[in-house]
Formats: sequence, C-alpha cells, structure tokens
Amino acid sequence: MSARILVVDDVDVNVRLLEAKLTIEYYDVLTCHDGQTALTLAAKEQPDLILLDVMMPGMDGFETCRRLKARAETRHIPVVLVTALDGRADRIRGLEAEADDFLTKPIDDVVLLARVKSLTRLKQVMDELREREESSRRMGVGDEAAARLRTEGGRVLIVDDDESQAAAVAAELGREHRVVVETDPQAALAAAKGPLDLIIVNVAAQSFDGLRVVAMLKSGDARRAPVLAIVEPSERPRMVKALELGATDILPRPIDTEELSARVRTQIRRKRYTDFLRQKLDSSLEMAVTDSLTGLHNRRYMAGQLQALVGRATHGGSPVAVLVLDIDHFKAVNDGFGHDAGDEVLAEFAVRLATNVRAVDLPCRMGGEEFVVVMPGAGLEDARMVAERIRRDIAAAPFRVMGGEEFLTITLSIGVAATTGAGDTPEALLKRADEGVYEAKAGGRNKVVARAV
Amino acid sequence: MSARILVVDDVDVNVRLLEAKLTIEYYDVLTCHDGQTALTLAAKEQPDLILLDVMMPGMDGFETCRRLKARAETRHIPVVLVTALDGRADRIRGLEAEADDFLTKPIDDVVLLARVKSLTRLKQVMDELREREESSRRMGVGDEAAARLRTEGGRVLIVDDDESQAAAVAAELGREHRVVVETDPQAALAAAKGPLDLIIVNVAAQSFDGLRVVAMLKSGDARRAPVLAIVEPSERPRMVKALELGATDILPRPIDTEELSARVRTQIRRKRYTDFLRQKLDSSLEMAVTDSLTGLHNRRYMAGQLQALVGRATHGGSPVAVLVLDIDHFKAVNDGFGHDAGDEVLAEFAVRLATNVRAVDLPCRMGGEEFVVVMPGAGLEDARMVAERIRRDIAAAPFRVMGGEEFLTITLSIGVAATTGAGDTPEALLKRADEGVYEAKAGGRNKVVARAV
Repeated sequence: MSARILVVDDVDVNVRLLEAKLTIEYYDVLTCHDGQTALTLAAKEQPDLILLDVMMPGMDGFETCRRLKARAETRHIPVVLVTALDGRADRIRGLEAEADDFLTKPIDDVVLLARVKSLTRLKQVMDELREREESSRRMGVGDEAAARLRTEGGRVLIVDDDESQAAAVAAELGREHRVVVETDPQAALAAAKGPLDLIIVNVAAQSFDGLRVVAMLKSGDARRAPVLAIVEPSERPRMVKALELGATDILPRPIDTEELSARVRTQIRRKRYTDFLRQKLDSSLEMAVTDSLTGLHNRRYMAGQLQALVGRATHGGSPVAVLVLDIDHFKAVNDGFGHDAGDEVLAEFAVRLATNVRAVDLPCRMGGEEFVVVMPGAGLEDARMVAERIRRDIAAAPFRVMGGEEFLTITLSIGVAATTGAGDTPEALLKRADEGVYEAKAGGRNKVVARAV
Repeated sequence: MSARILVVDDVDVNVRLLEAKLTIEYYDVLTCHDGQTALTLAAKEQPDLILLDVMMPGMDGFETCRRLKARAETRHIPVVLVTALDGRADRIRGLEAEADDFLTKPIDDVVLLARVKSLTRLKQVMDELREREESSRRMGVGDEAAARLRTEGGRVLIVDDDESQAAAVAAELGREHRVVVETDPQAALAAAKGPLDLIIVNVAAQSFDGLRVVAMLKSGDARRAPVLAIVEPSERPRMVKALELGATDILPRPIDTEELSARVRTQIRRKRYTDFLRQKLDSSLEMAVTDSLTGLHNRRYMAGQLQALVGRATHGGSPVAVLVLDIDHFKAVNDGFGHDAGDEVLAEFAVRLATNVRAVDLPCRMGGEEFVVVMPGAGLEDARMVAERIRRDIAAAPFRVMGGEEFLTITLSIGVAATTGAGDTPEALLKRADEGVYEAKAGGRNKVVARAV
C-alpha cells in the first residue's frame, strides 16, 4: 500500500537520501528541515508516517515528537525517530517521547521499508475508526480522555521456550503489568483467546517456529492484539517476515530490558487508543437507541424492531404483541412534587417494568410518561397476562421520591394488542393498543384493556 | 499480514497443493471438498478469503459463490474462483456470481499471493466497519439495504495515454457508468479529488509511469477509491507491484471489454458496500445526538457542548449564554387538537427557532415543549435581544396545523442567563435561565426574562 511520508532532518543530504529511497518504492514523500515546520506540515498534510531526525538545532526530535503526540490533529500519526547516535539512552528517551519506533543511521533499507509498511498498515485501520470518531466529536462527544490513557497494568502474554529469558522479561514487565508466560505454542494460542494488550513472541525459539505462532495469532482470535517479536539480529529475513505477518514491533536479542519496557509501553498505549476509539463509537451507537433517563430502548429502536417483527409475523412467522403503558395522572406528580420527583418515578417505573417482562421482550420509553413493550412470539392472551402482572406490581408498592421524603402511589393504564396475520402493520398494531389505553383511562384507569381487533 | 483462508475443491490433491503453498507463506488454511460444507464452514469460521473451485459435483463454484454472497454472515468474505477452464465465458459468469476475483489453473504462485494479500488487506478495513455496524444492527438498524446496492451509474475515471484503448474502454463502460478519460497523469490526480467509484489506470502506459500514478492516487485524496490496473501480461513484476501499491484489481492487455465490465461491476459493488457501512455508522452516530421529531440537537448533545463551553468561559475564555424556551399552554394544543397537531407545532417551532438564532448558536430540544439555545461568545444583553426576536417571531404569525384546517397562535416564555466568570457551572447557568422562565410565566407569559444572577 502506498502512503504519504514526511521526512524531517536539518541536514539536506540526509533528507534527499531518504526521499530517494522512499520515492523509488513509490511512496509520496514530503520533506522539511526543522521541528517547527514539521508540526505545521504534519497538521496540514496529514502524512501516514513521520521519519524524524533526533539531532536538530532549535527544537530537537524528542521535543518535536512530544508535541506531535500532544496535539489531537497529529496524535495518531506514527513517528519513527532517526538518529546517528547508537546510545540506548537516546532510544529509550525517544520511546518515552511517545515515538512509535526508532531507526539508527546508517539506515538499513530492508528494515526501514518493513517498518514503514507495518506502521502504515496499522494506521489504515486507525484512520477508519478516527474518521467515524471525528463525526461523533463534531457532535459533542469529547476525546479528552484519549490523552489520559494509561500505559501500566497491561495484560501481557509471553510466548518463549527459553525459560530464563522469559523469566527475566516477566520480572521486568511484572513491575508494571500483569504477565503470563507460556513455553508451549498450543497453550499460548489457547491463552490468546482471552483479552490481551500485548503478546511477546520469541521468533528465535528453538522448540517451535515463532513465525508460525505470530501468523496463527494474527489470523485468529488475537488479531487485534499487538505482537512484539523477539528476533536474532543476524536473522534479517525472519525479522522482516515477522513484521510482514503482522508483528507490530521487533526487538533484537540479547534483550535490553529497559528498552523492552519502553517499547511495551508504546505498544500498549497504541492498543488502548484503538480500543478507546472502538468503545467510544460503540457507546455512541448505543446511545442512538437508548432513552437517557431510564436506560430503556427509545422510540427509534422500538420502531425498527417492531417493523421487522411484524413483517415476519404477517409472512407466516410467529405473532408479536405490544403493550402501550401510560402512567395515570403523571402531570400531578410533576406539578405537585417537581420535575425531579417526576424523573425519579419514571426511573423506578422503568426498573419495575423491565423486571416484569420476559427476557425476550423489549421495554421501551416512547417519551414523557408513555412506554411500550414489544413481545416477540406472544399472542394476545399471553400479553394480557404480562400486562396484568405489570399493572399489579406498579400499584402494589408506592414509589419513593425526594430522597425518601415522599411516597407516591402510582397506577397505569395499559392497552394490549397482537398481530392478526397477513395485512397487519406496525402502525395498526400500535393504534389498537393505543385505543386500549384510551378505553382503560375512560374506564377509570389502573386497568388493562386488550383489543382483539 | 497473516490471514485465515478456506480452500474448497472436490479433488483432494488440488486442495493439498494449495494448502501447502499457503501454509509455507504462514497462512492459516482450512479445507473442504464441497459447496455445502463450504457454506457452513465459512459462516462458522469466518475466513478472510475463500479459494473456491468452479467444477465440483453437486453445488458448483458459481452457485456456492452466489449463496455465500447472498447471506449476511458471509457476504463480506472475498471469494476467488479457481478453475481449470480457460474460457472467458466462465470468468464472466464467475464475476457475475459476485466473485471478487478469478484464478486459472495451473495457478501462478506469485499472482496468487499478491491477490491474497490485496484482498485480505481490503477485508481488514471492512471488518473494522462491519464490527461497529454489527453493534448497531443488534440495536435495530437493519442492513437489508446492503443487498440492494446498485452496480450501475458508477463514476469512473480512466487514466490512459493510449487514446484508442481509452476510447474503447470508455465506450464499453459508458453504457452503464459515467466515465471521464484523462491522458495526462497530473490532470488525472486533479480529477481524482472529486468523488469516484473506480479509477482505471493503464500501468503499461508509454508516456508516464502508471505505477507512480497508482501510488499517488492511493496515498492521496483518492485512497478510498478502488483502482483497476491495466497491465501487460508479460510484465509480471509490475503487475504484482500494482497490487502491492493498493490496486484492487488487475486486467491484462489486450482488454476483453466484457470481462472488464464484469470486473468494474465487482469493484463498484464493493466500493458501495464500504461506503454504505461508513454512512450507516455516521448516521447512527448523528442520531445519538439528534431529536428525532424536530431534527434539532438533543439534550445529550446540549449537555456535552455546554460543559465544554462553560469550562472555557470560567477559565478566562469568552462567555456563553443560554436561553431556556417553554411554549405557553402547550398541553391545551395536545388536548384540544390531538398529539399530531402538537407535533406539527413543535416541528414548525423548531424551524422558526433555528432561523432566528446566529449560525454559531446551538438550538436544542430538551424534551416535551422545552427548548434550549446555547450561545457561544454571547453576553447577557446579546442573548436577551436574540430571545426577544424569537419571542416576537413566534407570536407574530399563527401556526398551521392539521393540513391547514386550523391555525393556532403560539407564544412562549423565555429565560436568559450568561456565564458570570470563575466558579460558574452549566447547572447553575441553566438554573438561572429556568428561573427566568418561571418569572416570565408568573408575569403573564409571552415574555423574556434575563437573570443576571
């Protein structure tokens, strides 16, 4: 997959060398020579990856990286720090500035391209989520929480047959994370069925093919978990293959535990950001069909479900019944005790309603003091009995409001209807139940009226 | 990226040959020997790709493919038909059964692996969307529409310097689609900024590097559009590179226009399915913050926005004002003319409200007959003037209800408040505006009352 890459280095010959290497591989390359310009260009051009020199006059690479990662509009862009220094201190400092990876000059072309591919592939999925998330942000669901995601307490699985190496890694990571070690690949695949924030695989293992383990993980249940592959530095083809198979980071043996910790934090941070985006989308989607006061389904959800169920019922499927429930004299509650007390009644009512219907039934709030229960598979008489049970339960015990200062006796009028076969519609069904409510009110309230036709 | 692949062929030796080739490349391979089992396995194991033999006793590959594509649980899985026949009729029949691609035996390994990579990469993004979409489907937003997506009327851009070839392709596709031809790559990149359903690039062009064009398209504005690359069959490395750069299909020269049409339909169908998923998610997200009767923002949205704006206002930012608006004697409308008339009044009220506030203001419906307008940057006096304008506009012309049978004069009571600096809260601000409403009602209604503290 092609991608747009921003190369930042104060030395022009370095910029041009990287630009040439990447252009030959058909990447679209942008360049600049200082951190400040990089910040502006990254926000404006939204590259898929930034290759950032560490040693620059003025704002150095660490600081530039930190600022890129602190801004909502560039936080998601992977940053690879590039430096002439071989010091591990710098490598760790880079990862702590939230860089996604680290390359040392002179740059190994094969490793460069493998890393670039791996990071831009990850970004493709993330972009999809972010774009949806941006729609919801425009609509008021904030993302301040993204900046506060923790990197500790990760669930880490280590797959390694080298027991002493695994023990050393587990000891180091155990200070911040919850670590499990598996020396057998089958046991590891079983363990990977649970929720994990990172899997560390020794690709240089003696007793199993570590690449196969990476492949099985990335094609199975654990495909969303990041994988850090431990590699033998002399085995370059296996290193590249690990990234190609979906490993999200690699670390050469012998393991530098401090660098390992920093890389693990980077992987876990990214995993949690992606999870955060997914969860936020899902919860926004759920909000779209939920009544915020009572937590019941809302009118929109009810309409969609009823449409589908009545469609099936009128084409030879099982019947569907509805209850329309209206709290009696609810205005008197609001007028006499205030809207807060009214809301307390509605919330308590919703709880009693939900506990008195069957597991397959769908209790919904239509708005105000009107509720509907959709009952798949129920006939008129089944539904009437459930309605009667609800009516009795509501009337039986008074509702506690205003912190227990007042107790209100609440009753309700319920209309019941069920599908009549071919030709019936959701609108007609609800209308019959509505007429039942009207009759129940006219008949003195606190009543259930079932309407056959 | 590793992936799970289902191989279906009635001849066991063929199955084992493909299994061996794919396993060496670290794919996770499932196998079976007939169409019926393939349908079951595909639904249960959710492979990332299906390699499906055409010539099988019982249910053949075409029929198996058609059924896979007709079922919601397998529709999204790419299917590659494999056959010993070289007849183009079969190739076209396969594409018409909605196969995603077509391979001829003996299978060219390099092409096989390039196709597999390209199709599983596409699926990765689609899975992300589908998974979110499944949450919303559980919540009642149906996906029946996905089965009815059209494949005609696509917007197709052809990038080709071979004018006679381009003309022939344009003539063929022009019968079903809207086609634009560009012979110059710069003009093509400019044209690709608009919405497109497919881009056809001649990778064998003489006057420009077609691979570069594919790369620029896939790293720029057009990255979401599918790209069909026209290749010289003798230039295998360029064919593979095209897929690697993000081309979603390839077609060898000389172009068989009927096969081209079938491939174009496949690409456009997939593009529209992805677009459909994106749009459905976005519209569900929007529903979460929209009042369904009036189309105004809902209480949830208002709360989120007000929280952020008051936070800024109390930390030295610009002030924010709120109007709370309550329609006078609204119950009389519902009781006297029915709920439908009441809904008509609310809808018309929302339109008048929205047209009388500033572009930056946020008109919201809180529920029932209560509305709120959040006014970023406004002080108390600005807000009072806007409120007064709304009050006059509502009272000035009667509301038309019941298809024009009745005209109702509507008035409202408005409370106004603005942030007072450090220490203010959204709750306190809304409470002051609420007290304004109460005072306006007590003072005879059809009034604006601004509360400084």
